[in-house]
Amino acid sequence: MDKLLIAFGGNAIIRAGQMGTYEEQLENIRSCCSQLAELYEQGCSMVITHGNGPQVGNILIQNESAAEQIPVQPLHSCVAQTQGQLGYMLQCELENEFRQRGKAVQTAAIVTRVLVDSSDEAFSRCTKPIGPFFSEQYAKEKMEQGETWINDSGRGWRRVVPSPQPIKILELEIIKHALEHCGLVIAVGGGGVPVVEKNNQLVGIDAVIDKDLASALLARDLGLDALVLLTDVSNVKLNFGQLNEQDVDHLTAAETERYLSEGQFGTGSMAPKIQAALDFVKAGGKRAIITSLTEVNEAVKGRAGTVITR
Amino acid sequence: MDKLLIAFGGNAIIRAGQMGTYEEQLENIRSCCSQLAELYEQGCSMVITHGNGPQVGNILIQNESAAEQIPVQPLHSCVAQTQGQLGYMLQCELENEFRQRGKAVQTAAIVTRVLVDSSDEAFSRCTKPIGPFFSEQYAKEKMEQGETWINDSGRGWRRVVPSPQPIKILELEIIKHALEHCGLVIAVGGGGVPVVEKNNQLVGIDAVIDKDLASALLARDLGLDALVLLTDVSNVKLNFGQLNEQDVDHLTAAETERYLSEGQFGTGSMAPKIQAALDFVKAGGKRAIITSLTEVNEAVKGRAGTVITR
Repeated sequence: MDKLLIAFGGNAIIRAGQMGTYEEQLENIRSCCSQLAELYEQGCSMVITHGNGPQVGNILIQNESAAEQIPVQPLHSCVAQTQGQLGYMLQCELENEFRQRGKAVQTAAIVTRVLVDSSDEAFSRCTKPIGPFFSEQYAKEKMEQGETWINDSGRGWRRVVPSPQPIKILELEIIKHALEHCGLVIAVGGGGVPVVEKNNQLVGIDAVIDKDLASALLARDLGLDALVLLTDVSNVKLNFGQLNEQDVDHLTAAETERYLSEGQFGTGSMAPKIQAALDFVKAGGKRAIITSLTEVNEAVKGRAGTVITR
Repeated sequence: MDKLLIAFGGNAIIRAGQMGTYEEQLENIRSCCSQLAELYEQGCSMVITHGNGPQVGNILIQNESAAEQIPVQPLHSCVAQTQGQLGYMLQCELENEFRQRGKAVQTAAIVTRVLVDSSDEAFSRCTKPIGPFFSEQYAKEKMEQGETWINDSGRGWRRVVPSPQPIKILELEIIKHALEHCGLVIAVGGGGVPVVEKNNQLVGIDAVIDKDLASALLARDLGLDALVLLTDVSNVKLNFGQLNEQDVDHLTAAETERYLSEGQFGTGSMAPKIQAALDFVKAGGKRAIITSLTEVNEAVKGRAGTVITR
């Protein structure tokens, strides 16, 4: 009866080249559900987390487009919107997968706030890309309005926002209870709604927390057996893109730290995943797994993916 | 230790004449929280539900404004967005109220789907107004695009959507557990995300469920002590607007049915509240209360508002 946290990318729900229609997103979610249903039927209970980069970026653009008629809502409120939107879709498609298997399984989606520090240095630099790719001209117009944009790996221009460290999952206890009760809980959507404490009050702050770091924190505090971070590739690689590139099956925390400091995992999306995995095992977590969706079932059994242990 | 359901209107969060900035909404929510905190400190546990008419209407307009760049999401998905948005805001402001009182109280916001019947006759007529008021000219342009709009009580034109009967709260069990665990749960936002069963699959459907009817169903199925429906006035009135207008303190189910059939409560927002209250007590609920936010504390003690009992 393993207790797992499975973290999906927001990019797994709106995929490269897609505009993000409801049907596209639902179809992408649906394609993830059979793997999760199999794990559940094998006795695993699961917290499912998801990114929201494409979705929250879309909501911001919708806000800006209607700004003359409807007041623009702040980014943290838009993050909360994506938790409702994607939580609802994940619930329906997970339960539909079980219905096809002749089983009635109840899921829960919990709105989740995550405490961050307003003096986090992340607030002085924007690093987290959100929303669709745009032309350089569009990006320059937006930059003149005060936004920060980057040329994202040569694929086009994207808006970037601050991404502070998650400090505390405010809904930890209710997520724990929900997991005990129903075994399939969707939480910490989009890395959680970022809030800070200011004069002993909780106040939303404009940022998008890295969902892998927030997932590692949640998995640690729930005392889960494994943190599973899904990505596009089945394994972490060493010497990526070089003649001696190799898949890695297993890393210790010490090896992981050394490779991270050597820059083995680049500056893209893999390094934060490795860091989240390392955070989890260093804090006492048994194992962190990095793999692709199609390999997740095998990886949980120790037969695929990259496992990081203490 | 009364267990209550307290239902807020979406119009209590974006008030008449307001555009609906984040700050306006937060301030309106904040002004509701001291009453709720007092009830909680007196030993009441509470499910808090909220409407979303203004908010979901705003999100639809934002969707339409950006339609050339970002695919328009369906209404049911926008309802789910408002659950994240308003659930998050309610959580923060409730907890902030307790923080000011020197107490750490944990709330929970649960994404809630509500089953409706795809053959509900409500799908053949639009009755539920959403979003802001617009000019006749704007409404006519939208009607030419296939939407339904009405002249809402002479205050301007508003879009209307179908509002089917709620049949089943899909998240009933998790809401029950959350209420036992933390005593302050936000659920069934905007009347719940409407879904139908189609070939044994759950499928979202475009509608906005009346939040008072969904609240009555939830209060009944949770076996709560009282259903509290908040409105603009402290009491239900008989002979409204006539010389013999009178406040009502108490109604039996039989009296309520008679007055309803006589059309005493008009066709506006009061009649559905009365119907929801009646549904609750006829299904075995002890008491339904209709009152204003400022009177809610006294009304729960039986010293204000209109109480409907079986």
